[in-house]
Amino acid sequence: MTRITHLLAQHGLNIVSMREFVEEASTRFFTRIECTGMQESEASVREELQACLPDGSIIEVNPNNEKRVAVMVSREYHCLGEILIHHYFGTLGASVCCVIGNHSHLEAFTRKFSIPFFHISHEEKPKEAFEKEVLAVLEAQQPDYIVLAKFMRILSPDFIARYEQRILNIHHSFLPAFVGAQPYRQAFERGVKLIGATAHIVTNNLDEGPIIAQQTIPVNHTFGVKEMIKAGKEIEKAVLNKAMQLLFEDRVFLNENKTIVFE
Amino acid sequence: MTRITHLLAQHGLNIVSMREFVEEASTRFFTRIECTGMQESEASVREELQACLPDGSIIEVNPNNEKRVAVMVSREYHCLGEILIHHYFGTLGASVCCVIGNHSHLEAFTRKFSIPFFHISHEEKPKEAFEKEVLAVLEAQQPDYIVLAKFMRILSPDFIARYEQRILNIHHSFLPAFVGAQPYRQAFERGVKLIGATAHIVTNNLDEGPIIAQQTIPVNHTFGVKEMIKAGKEIEKAVLNKAMQLLFEDRVFLNENKTIVFE
Amino acid sequence: MTRITHLLAQHGLNIVSMREFVEEASTRFFTRIECTGMQESEASVREELQACLPDGSIIEVNPNNEKRVAVMVSREYHCLGEILIHHYFGTLGASVCCVIGNHSHLEAFTRKFSIPFFHISHEEKPKEAFEKEVLAVLEAQQPDYIVLAKFMRILSPDFIARYEQRILNIHHSFLPAFVGAQPYRQAFERGVKLIGATAHIVTNNLDEGPIIAQQTIPVNHTFGVKEMIKAGKEIEKAVLNKAMQLLFEDRVFLNENKTIVFE
Amino acid sequence: MTRITHLLAQHGLNIVSMREFVEEASTRFFTRIECTGMQESEASVREELQACLPDGSIIEVNPNNEKRVAVMVSREYHCLGEILIHHYFGTLGASVCCVIGNHSHLEAFTRKFSIPFFHISHEEKPKEAFEKEVLAVLEAQQPDYIVLAKFMRILSPDFIARYEQRILNIHHSFLPAFVGAQPYRQAFERGVKLIGATAHIVTNNLDEGPIIAQQTIPVNHTFGVKEMIKAGKEIEKAVLNKAMQLLFEDRVFLNENKTIVFE
Repeated sequence: MTRITHLLAQHGLNIVSMREFVEEASTRFFTRIECTGMQESEASVREELQACLPDGSIIEVNPNNEKRVAVMVSREYHCLGEILIHHYFGTLGASVCCVIGNHSHLEAFTRKFSIPFFHISHEEKPKEAFEKEVLAVLEAQQPDYIVLAKFMRILSPDFIARYEQRILNIHHSFLPAFVGAQPYRQAFERGVKLIGATAHIVTNNLDEGPIIAQQTIPVNHTFGVKEMIKAGKEIEKAVLNKAMQLLFEDRVFLNENKTIVFE
Repeated sequence: MTRITHLLAQHGLNIVSMREFVEEASTRFFTRIECTGMQESEASVREELQACLPDGSIIEVNPNNEKRVAVMVSREYHCLGEILIHHYFGTLGASVCCVIGNHSHLEAFTRKFSIPFFHISHEEKPKEAFEKEVLAVLEAQQPDYIVLAKFMRILSPDFIARYEQRILNIHHSFLPAFVGAQPYRQAFERGVKLIGATAHIVTNNLDEGPIIAQQTIPVNHTFGVKEMIKAGKEIEKAVLNKAMQLLFEDRVFLNENKTIVFE
Repeated sequence: MTRITHLLAQHGLNIVSMREFVEEASTRFFTRIECTGMQESEASVREELQACLPDGSIIEVNPNNEKRVAVMVSREYHCLGEILIHHYFGTLGASVCCVIGNHSHLEAFTRKFSIPFFHISHEEKPKEAFEKEVLAVLEAQQPDYIVLAKFMRILSPDFIARYEQRILNIHHSFLPAFVGAQPYRQAFERGVKLIGATAHIVTNNLDEGPIIAQQTIPVNHTFGVKEMIKAGKEIEKAVLNKAMQLLFEDRVFLNENKTIVFE
Repeated sequence: MTRITHLLAQHGLNIVSMREFVEEASTRFFTRIECTGMQESEASVREELQACLPDGSIIEVNPNNEKRVAVMVSREYHCLGEILIHHYFGTLGASVCCVIGNHSHLEAFTRKFSIPFFHISHEEKPKEAFEKEVLAVLEAQQPDYIVLAKFMRILSPDFIARYEQRILNIHHSFLPAFVGAQPYRQAFERGVKLIGATAHIVTNNLDEGPIIAQQTIPVNHTFGVKEMIKAGKEIEKAVLNKAMQLLFEDRVFLNENKTIVFE
């Protein structure tokens, strides 16, 4: 720690905020330092940090540039709506470069905001072909992150590997409860008194990726599946919003299947 | 409904509060009516209600008597502490008739409140023998409800059948996440951002009984298993408290594996 | 109660849900009954109910028509965004007939959704003149409700009287804490650990109208005024959403300066 | 920062956790460092830190000793109950040296836990005389902190000055809403939809001291004053518990009328 702050001071960098965490089991050390006054290239600072830190240290020097985000959707509008409005008014902390839908339901809505919408149907073709088309769009758009805003298809390991640690998903349950399909129906049938939503990084294991944010709200016996879905949408939006903010401000560190979140 | 209120009016009963719920799928109708001015026996009111309602209706006429509660514990004190203090100051909404522990850790504490403590070890004997001893105590004490206040043994179907729908358990997770043993370790390993507690009626299926109350609180990457356990105890207490209050005020109706809770 | 359900049954109405509340101090009785199977006019049902109920009873028979809503805004977009998206996708439970802004900032955004936007500046004119222009628009539009979606001017008693009990406001604090201007600055200076939002019906007393919904979220010492404003917007949206839903589903009953909310 | 960590390293101290905060307006810097491996006296470490830091820096070197706590009560038991049970089972993070009550209601309860109870009535004597008696007890007991666990008298500035920054109070409202007496009655009359509790350090301005923790819970129109008081007790306990834990672990830093809380 002392070595890092010393080196930053030498480079004339002014530390605005600093957070750190030592994981006891692994004795891994995580730190997030926000600086102003960067005069040199990020590459040179990264190199010097690398030289003064133990082998195997992972160092990211992120400029305060706006991230580019591609959004993938199916038919539900509520998460996309939230994203596009924040984008339109400049409060997303990122810029939406395109929306990709396996249905065309949200095309007209997206175009209102002058954002390209790519309708790529998953029907009547193998998953591989569908993903190839999606990847072609993504390669052209070069997003930093992909947000699955209620995208209801499961992506293949190959696809995920291409954007490792860069795909954010919102799952409509308090994971690990109600993994998989129709979580609100599962919740209804179990008779829970809270429902939840979970934002997580996508890995090969469905609904098993590192969790960034979760939230719950009370329900009761008067809630049918329909009412749960409706109430759930409000927290899905809230949780996704929070996760995007944390991610786009470089506050989320991955540690195997967990996250360190410096809020 | 009209028939019920009409009949109650005929008996000079004054309706203080009334709640009802119709379950759509089954068209089952549930109502809870609180009355004052009871002049006749409960049995006669129940009979007349039975006569005017469809066959198969379940009718309970509960006088406002204090329930008798037996508490079963193992080693953890926090739920028992909550119960005994409420009992001592007359705010439990019930009276604790005894505490049964499979360990003796909480004996001295219980006796401070002049409540009988029965230490019945589960060690070096078959479960059947252990439960027989417990049942002997319960038969002598005649409790209306049994509260498992962090009692860490699994009860047999036979035991549960004896006190069907009358055993309340507090589980230290947000069910159905983390069923079974060591839920906080499971939560830690999964890297969740919320932990929870669940109060439910005990049935033969472990952790699958009808849920009465649930609550969650935020945790983050700095929480180890120990910190989760500590934070979790606070909501276990809160959830158990709430469930006991609802149960002892006859606000919980069972509907197969779910509850109707008229708060 | 018996008389009401009896009369509804006579008219062939099928009770779907029923809620009631007796205020102890005043012994006022409130009930909300949802029926299907209406064959006759609302007026005739209302008349018969009036005849069988005590003098002074207030009876509303609301058909399940969509309400018309006029929205008033200033410069902040987040509440309007929420409303217009719900409107566009048909999930507002009401229809937005127009947006009135005392600034023009949100005009282009509103027009994307094909909703008329009236820019009526409050500058360089007396309040009376400003409100006269607004009232002219409202009279033409005939809204059932007016939603103040971060409208930052105080309306005159005369204006409010014209739309008594029909103006909904979202206030950016947990009332009654931080009444008046700049509540987040006040919250920051007081060093609170929670911030909140309040949706209420507008009366002549600023920020004193009947409260429909409130919510809080945690903040800490790292939150400056700017961060509180940002975090607060998320709960302002959530609270306003909830209040609109309750209001548009006729679940809110006014009782002097309080509300009965049959959720 | 670098200077501090350097110095601690020189003394062979191992940093377990480190938190810092820079208040922008004042550019005041706050840091909390938890170390193991202390070989020297606290005084010598403090001196060296003082020498290497700017003039006016406030340095506390706290050994991990258990704090001594005096509790002051009136008639309500719920906060005292929580404290004594945690004390009894060794999980308070402090040791209760005595309980002082201006009523004798809680004497028998306190004595169950073998803790001295001093009944000092405030009746038929001037405040000055009452406080003199209390101060005599406190001087004999030498507590590090005084916890007002629903102590319903207002302490004089002289009294507070003697234990500056060392008196913790639990107030039964979400401050700054409902300052002063009968906050639940005020909340009931205002018709709020949430009630709260606030734990704060006591200063001369009633209910204006630096806030450590706050929490709210939902209420609705069915809650009378009595029900609010009952529900409120549960969060008073939760909030006081949390504040005591933070305080006793030296996580609370005072910054004029605010707190920095390194959770």
